Amino acid sequence: MDTQLEAKIVERGKEFFKSISGEAPSIFNKGWWTGKVMDWAMKNEDFKVQLFRFVDVFPYLNTSESLSRHIREYFSGEDHEVPAVLKWGAGKASFGGKLTAKIMEKTIRSNIENMGRQFIVGQNTKEAVKGLAKLRKEGFTFTVDLLGEATVSEEEADAYRDGYLEVLDAIAEEQSKWKAHAGKGGDSSMDWGYTPKVNVSIKPSALYSQAKPVDIEGSVQGIYKRLEPIYRKVIEMGAFLCIDMESLKYREITLELYRRLRSAQEFRHYPHLSIVLQAYLRCTEHDAEQLIHWARTEQLPIAVRLVKGAYWDMESVLAKQNNWDFPVWMYKPESDIAFERVAKILLENHDIVYFACASHNIRTISATMEMAQSMTVPENRYEFQVLYGMAEPVRKGLLNVAGRVRLYCPYGDIIPGMAYLVRRLLENTANESFLRQSFADGAEVARLLENPEITLQRELAARPEPKPEEIVDGLPLFKNDAMIDFTIPKCRTAFPAAIKKVRESAGGVIPLYINGKEVQTEDVIPTTNPADYNEKIADVCQAGTAEIDAALEAADKAFLTWRDTPAKERAECLLKAAELARQRQYELSAWQVLEIGKQWDQAYHDVGEGIDFLEYYAREMLRLDKPRRMGRAPGEHNQLFYQPKGVAAVISPWNFPFAIAIGMCSAAIVTGNPVVYKPASISSRVGYNLVEIFREAGLPDGVFNYCPGRSSVMGDYLIEHPKVSMICFTGSMEVGLRIQNKASVVQPNQMQCKRVIAEMGGKNAIIIDDDADLDEAVLHVVYSAFAFQGQKCSACSRVIVLDPIYDRFVERLVKACQDIKIGRSEDPENYMGPVADASCQKTVMDYIKIAEEEGTILLKRDDHPANGAYVPLTIVGDIKPEHRIAQEEIFGPVLAIMRAATFDDAIAIANGTRFALTGGVFSRSPEHLEQARKEFRVGNLYLNRNNTGALVERQPFGGFKMSGVGSKTGGPDYLIQFLDPRVVTENTMRRGFAPIEEDDDWI
Amino acid sequence: MDTQLEAKIVERGKEFFKSISGEAPSIFNKGWWTGKVMDWAMKNEDFKVQLFRFVDVFPYLNTSESLSRHIREYFSGEDHEVPAVLKWGAGKASFGGKLTAKIMEKTIRSNIENMGRQFIVGQNTKEAVKGLAKLRKEGFTFTVDLLGEATVSEEEADAYRDGYLEVLDAIAEEQSKWKAHAGKGGDSSMDWGYTPKVNVSIKPSALYSQAKPVDIEGSVQGIYKRLEPIYRKVIEMGAFLCIDMESLKYREITLELYRRLRSAQEFRHYPHLSIVLQAYLRCTEHDAEQLIHWARTEQLPIAVRLVKGAYWDMESVLAKQNNWDFPVWMYKPESDIAFERVAKILLENHDIVYFACASHNIRTISATMEMAQSMTVPENRYEFQVLYGMAEPVRKGLLNVAGRVRLYCPYGDIIPGMAYLVRRLLENTANESFLRQSFADGAEVARLLENPEITLQRELAARPEPKPEEIVDGLPLFKNDAMIDFTIPKCRTAFPAAIKKVRESAGGVIPLYINGKEVQTEDVIPTTNPADYNEKIADVCQAGTAEIDAALEAADKAFLTWRDTPAKERAECLLKAAELARQRQYELSAWQVLEIGKQWDQAYHDVGEGIDFLEYYAREMLRLDKPRRMGRAPGEHNQLFYQPKGVAAVISPWNFPFAIAIGMCSAAIVTGNPVVYKPASISSRVGYNLVEIFREAGLPDGVFNYCPGRSSVMGDYLIEHPKVSMICFTGSMEVGLRIQNKASVVQPNQMQCKRVIAEMGGKNAIIIDDDADLDEAVLHVVYSAFAFQGQKCSACSRVIVLDPIYDRFVERLVKACQDIKIGRSEDPENYMGPVADASCQKTVMDYIKIAEEEGTILLKRDDHPANGAYVPLTIVGDIKPEHRIAQEEIFGPVLAIMRAATFDDAIAIANGTRFALTGGVFSRSPEHLEQARKEFRVGNLYLNRNNTGALVERQPFGGFKMSGVGSKTGGPDYLIQFLDPRVVTENTMRRGFAPIEEDDDWI
Repeated sequence: MDTQLEAKIVERGKEFFKSISGEAPSIFNKGWWTGKVMDWAMKNEDFKVQLFRFVDVFPYLNTSESLSRHIREYFSGEDHEVPAVLKWGAGKASFGGKLTAKIMEKTIRSNIENMGRQFIVGQNTKEAVKGLAKLRKEGFTFTVDLLGEATVSEEEADAYRDGYLEVLDAIAEEQSKWKAHAGKGGDSSMDWGYTPKVNVSIKPSALYSQAKPVDIEGSVQGIYKRLEPIYRKVIEMGAFLCIDMESLKYREITLELYRRLRSAQEFRHYPHLSIVLQAYLRCTEHDAEQLIHWARTEQLPIAVRLVKGAYWDMESVLAKQNNWDFPVWMYKPESDIAFERVAKILLENHDIVYFACASHNIRTISATMEMAQSMTVPENRYEFQVLYGMAEPVRKGLLNVAGRVRLYCPYGDIIPGMAYLVRRLLENTANESFLRQSFADGAEVARLLENPEITLQRELAARPEPKPEEIVDGLPLFKNDAMIDFTIPKCRTAFPAAIKKVRESAGGVIPLYINGKEVQTEDVIPTTNPADYNEKIADVCQAGTAEIDAALEAADKAFLTWRDTPAKERAECLLKAAELARQRQYELSAWQVLEIGKQWDQAYHDVGEGIDFLEYYAREMLRLDKPRRMGRAPGEHNQLFYQPKGVAAVISPWNFPFAIAIGMCSAAIVTGNPVVYKPASISSRVGYNLVEIFREAGLPDGVFNYCPGRSSVMGDYLIEHPKVSMICFTGSMEVGLRIQNKASVVQPNQMQCKRVIAEMGGKNAIIIDDDADLDEAVLHVVYSAFAFQGQKCSACSRVIVLDPIYDRFVERLVKACQDIKIGRSEDPENYMGPVADASCQKTVMDYIKIAEEEGTILLKRDDHPANGAYVPLTIVGDIKPEHRIAQEEIFGPVLAIMRAATFDDAIAIANGTRFALTGGVFSRSPEHLEQARKEFRVGNLYLNRNNTGALVERQPFGGFKMSGVGSKTGGPDYLIQFLDPRVVTENTMRRGFAPIEEDDDWI
Repeated sequence: MDTQLEAKIVERGKEFFKSISGEAPSIFNKGWWTGKVMDWAMKNEDFKVQLFRFVDVFPYLNTSESLSRHIREYFSGEDHEVPAVLKWGAGKASFGGKLTAKIMEKTIRSNIENMGRQFIVGQNTKEAVKGLAKLRKEGFTFTVDLLGEATVSEEEADAYRDGYLEVLDAIAEEQSKWKAHAGKGGDSSMDWGYTPKVNVSIKPSALYSQAKPVDIEGSVQGIYKRLEPIYRKVIEMGAFLCIDMESLKYREITLELYRRLRSAQEFRHYPHLSIVLQAYLRCTEHDAEQLIHWARTEQLPIAVRLVKGAYWDMESVLAKQNNWDFPVWMYKPESDIAFERVAKILLENHDIVYFACASHNIRTISATMEMAQSMTVPENRYEFQVLYGMAEPVRKGLLNVAGRVRLYCPYGDIIPGMAYLVRRLLENTANESFLRQSFADGAEVARLLENPEITLQRELAARPEPKPEEIVDGLPLFKNDAMIDFTIPKCRTAFPAAIKKVRESAGGVIPLYINGKEVQTEDVIPTTNPADYNEKIADVCQAGTAEIDAALEAADKAFLTWRDTPAKERAECLLKAAELARQRQYELSAWQVLEIGKQWDQAYHDVGEGIDFLEYYAREMLRLDKPRRMGRAPGEHNQLFYQPKGVAAVISPWNFPFAIAIGMCSAAIVTGNPVVYKPASISSRVGYNLVEIFREAGLPDGVFNYCPGRSSVMGDYLIEHPKVSMICFTGSMEVGLRIQNKASVVQPNQMQCKRVIAEMGGKNAIIIDDDADLDEAVLHVVYSAFAFQGQKCSACSRVIVLDPIYDRFVERLVKACQDIKIGRSEDPENYMGPVADASCQKTVMDYIKIAEEEGTILLKRDDHPANGAYVPLTIVGDIKPEHRIAQEEIFGPVLAIMRAATFDDAIAIANGTRFALTGGVFSRSPEHLEQARKEFRVGNLYLNRNNTGALVERQPFGGFKMSGVGSKTGGPDYLIQFLDPRVVTENTMRRGFAPIEEDDDWI
């Protein structure tokens, strides 16, 4: 630490504080409603959550009924009283007395709107231009940002682009009237002599609806296309453009976009283009260095706005949810340290980097100033920025000291405005917020100005010793396989390589695997790539009844030793298999991409789920393996434990050809039941992956037998066989019911009642409440309905939309689906690919015909490739509950839209089929969410998120009614279905003498 | 406390100790094998358990192979080495070196036999007479006791009686040669001038094989009949008879026996008859007073031997197991206090009571002496007794001080001798044993002589604060309903009263109960008493399809509110029902006695099991009602919980007409599933008890519907009905399989796959290993096979006997069954009654015919009442595994005996049927028991006890293979079968902001 510099920083900070002594940001002013409410929110975490959520939903509350209902739901606690603080300001007359609901609502509405206006320079172009002019008069400069909803369609992206063009036009007219702020020489028509008076910030993701990290190039191009005209206009009017950095997901896209725009032939002459870097990202120092290196190589001056970063909560929650490495700094002081470090780098390179220091933290600001001074960086190479409506004392102090302050000024509609407001409120009320600590909590100045390195050391020292990793039965706790993270380049490059490798090894003959030996048959069936029937994946041998007999005999024999193999050893086989699958995860995924048309992420997560099953069931078996003493009477010892049932026939579907198959097989195997496994015909090659893995994992001969075959030849034979003790099936309702019926007939020499575990179909609905966040609802519905072409039993096939929001939702949804890319699944730019095979294609096409008859087609995407098993993505409206399209499982990309008058109606419609598998609700009404929890009766209900992708352990999966008979896969009740419970009771008293055990209920 | 007396007692005790200073009982002499082994046993609890169990089984180890195998199994630990202490004495040459197995076995065998001889005066009459004469020469007197195995048949009782007559004859010849011990005057031909030289002790239970507390009069008569000739001979030879007190079970019988014998016209002139009282029983002070009162009323002098009591462990374990009040004093000093108090009473009444103080405790002896002295009790009114082979210093001291010491001298075979030995070893090695403390642990004399009142206070003060009763979900932990205790007079008198009351109210018309209303039908079926078809129990209305429709509709409607009724309220209904059943327990039992021919205890425990189901399932539901958070990822909240499935059809059997019916119904109801209940026709009146109870418990209309009916009319209709979501069935395999098949056919408008919970038949085997304790095995097999006429699905219907023990076991078993009383179940003297009805009678008779064809009839008890549904108790030998009698469920009192060459064979035979319900093993081989745990694959396996009467929670009940499809009733996995699991996943992140919950996996 440079102690001299450090002293100067603190000194300057103290002066800064002194210069603004007694002032406070208006948001903390308790004389005002906002200040009062903020104060309460900071003291009461529950209220804060409710308040911010209420602010979030607020723009949707257009009717008095809706507003009052939400106020009640969010804020009435046990005592059914809305807190006085919220009602405050409703007029002196009513203060403390009884307030009529109408007045209260009005007050709250206007208070919240005022709160929003605090941070927004205007709600439309005219207001904005006026507001900006006013700020300039006060001596500030600005960068203007157009607020927007999430861009879910290309039309919305166009509109966003046009919005920018509009505001630029409006400002262009005005800017000549504005006097430039004086500087120390330079160009007197420019602010401070060197920077354009007009400065625009833009969120790149808003300019392209299909941006995604797996497709960097496509995303950059998509954004670039719409950014180009904006940038032309910016240059035309001599303005400045800053490309904002959003969530980590878009980081690489944004960096590439910046480089491409900055270095384009047309634009490389123009220096006023900036990019934002976020100090809270661990990779930002590296990014800054790379960017500078690039600038020097290209000999192009660049500009960087450095911020701390506004999505810390989200990034860290996502990382935890997906089992990713933490991308952000864990402790606040670490981000502060990183900010100063990156600022130093940027200042050191001031010859080529123009630096905007965007912070409200007086320590950070002081450090920047002192570093610049110590490096003698010219003042025209850096500036300071703060957010409009926040930290007024800081901006005032900066104006005094530096003279160069730019305010970040959002403008736009109230709906996106509220989202922005919530982020600002969060920032202000966070415990670690510098503004809160400085101006609300009254922290000591010395503490506020402390070197963050010291703060960090203190915080680390005060931190409780981390708990040692919890070990149960000799294993760390179960953890889901990490979601694939396409922001990591090697995750993107691994796929084409794996697909290439798999493609090269495809096309051979796949034998059966019985009793540890490969068995060839004359009868083979080819499996092909559904995107191209000419690409053969494999010729698969077909088991007949003789092979089934052999497999069952092998399994029956293996049972005698496998059931007595210690559970620990059986579990270890699963753990070994999991490890093998992890090592081959890309390759295993690639087989699915080619054989069944899964997209990269879908295939990767299928394999990940298979790994999860192996890891989870291994642990579950160890848990269940411990005999439990029942009762505590002395002289008697009762133990409850479980034993395997016998040979299991596993019949698995093609849609999760690895996960579901290995899930069912491993559950049977780890519980001690040998398996005869019949994969779905069209995914038999992926099915063979199980042979490869279990073989290498060291399963004894006969414990796992791979028997693909024609259902018509050996399907019933297998199910009806007296040697089969249990049948694990996942597939259609029709087949599932047939199996149950066949299995209930006791055959000669059959020694047990067959247990059938059948997971069957769904007709899953998502309800869109009238206060649903459409930014989220639209994208999640698209994903739920059309990811992997809707071929998931969990997929959404009905959307039930509340009447008041019907038109807005449906319009956005249809437009979003209009722009989805359809094509080969192996190309990551495509969102949707072909269905599984020609037979599936025909079924879906038949249903589309029915849809056309029953309802109104809102979208039918015939623009798919001509060859292969493609079907049009179809959305059909005007569907009534009694329609076949509303009742029958389609298993393809066909979505029915239904209208509901009330939330009660919506629930009734949702429950009104024979199925009960998954469901979803998008709502911001606490009572409706609660109602859905109780009354939306499905196996897996998802609130405010997509309704597919259940994770092992976290979302045990499976339904009831006609959707399933078993208990949930990947959950704590699953394995006991594969086991018979036994109790052994020992009378331990002999000759009146019983040893007393420790857990006896004794005297 | 009389401090003067107290001081004298201590003073006398000190003198006593002084007089025997330096001596120790031979059993603690570490120079000998026994002392060494005792020493190790006292230091090592595990070794002690193994040693005593080994001593117990030892007499059965007749072959070298068997002995060496058991030595290894009992004593080889992890290091496979038999402890040196056991081998000690095998010869100096081999000490510390390698010992051949043969020598070791021989050594251990002779050491243990010597250990046994320590306590036994002789192994036969001749030896005994010789031993007794020797003792007399040493100045002691004796009371001789003939050791015996448990008396399981009348032939054995005869043999025991004859044994006594034989020893008396032998002694009679000798006694004239014996010189009487001199006394202070009196009759010089008598010991000490007043007491017979010959003194005999006798265990009354050994004289009658059918003695049981429920039948006091029959038991007393049975014993009296065989005691009479013995007593005549005693009187004839001028000897003394003492009636021993055994376990609490026989206390009342023994007291009555004593009074009857003492006051019989023939015997009332003869004063030399004594009874034993046990100070450890809480009721003994009362018994002593009553007895003295009786003696004074009858003007008959009596004699009492007061002992501390030898069955403390057993009595307290049984009390704990059966949920009885503790009948014995909990703390050792309490027994000591009680001894002194009762001794005082007896001494105070010395004019009419002759008192024998039987104790090894020098404090107790001193107190007796000093109390007698202070009351100036003449010496010829009390004496002292100690056990032969124990406490040699005490007997020596007593001889010195009191001059009147009688030794209790058992004699007889090694087999019962070992049981006696174990009791003595236990006594010597107990932590609280006075002998151990005095002579092995070297406690201080002052402490040993301390007033037990003071000892008690100290022990109570040192005792840890008792833990408060554990409360879960607002309820105390589950506890089984107490077993009926027929030693309590009001339990015996309640039954005839309840039967009378029920009989008076029987004979009416029983309506259906649908939707909260009674419904009469024209079609009725009478139910009758199977012991007397002329006694009508009820005319029962019969549901047709219209009534089933109505009931299902009511249930379906009730489902909508009942499923949403809080689990707590539903559970409270069950608890209320349990309370109502408890209040009416005798009456409810009485209905079963009359309608289905259950014995008192069988009926009472059936109702008790029903109460247990209600109490247990109420608690289980509260446990399952708590949603579980799955995973701990932030920003996401997953809850797993359960919801009811729908309407349940409950079809119950007649054999546990209350317990099984209310178990299934209450499981369905408490989980939220309304019930349509079809009781078995022949127990419909008991089935109606459920209506009475559930109605009063306040179940809403439609939740419970009672629909008896003809299976041919409405059976399939109910099962196939689309409104039925689940079927709970207990009954035969044939019907169970039919139900499963019917239920698997999906009907039009059916909304769910039906869940069938079927508990079916059994063909249960008990294995008798060649080292089985036959005293226990015979009686438990008789109970398992013939209690309630073998009409339990758990009943034993095959006994598989190891070849070496086959003849001994079968002989005792057949003889035991020969003497069982058969007749009306309402008469408690009968062990077996009629089967359930004429149809059952016919089925059983048909099977007896088959048994006659397939095997050799060993017993066929045609001596049953002529009217009613009686069948002969039948035992058939020479049965092979392939015989129908070995494979098919008979459900009646027919027992097949099968022979097995090895234990492996026995297990294979036991497992060799389609059923897997219960099983039993009698063995004292640790390895065989362990093997059975693993390989004897049945739902409920019982080691060394009967295999019926599974208790809720302690022995969750049910089987697999063709015995059942569901999970175990009364166990932790039962209720989830009635529930569908659901998971609700909420995305709690909005606008990047997620409230962090306490159990989040956060940073």
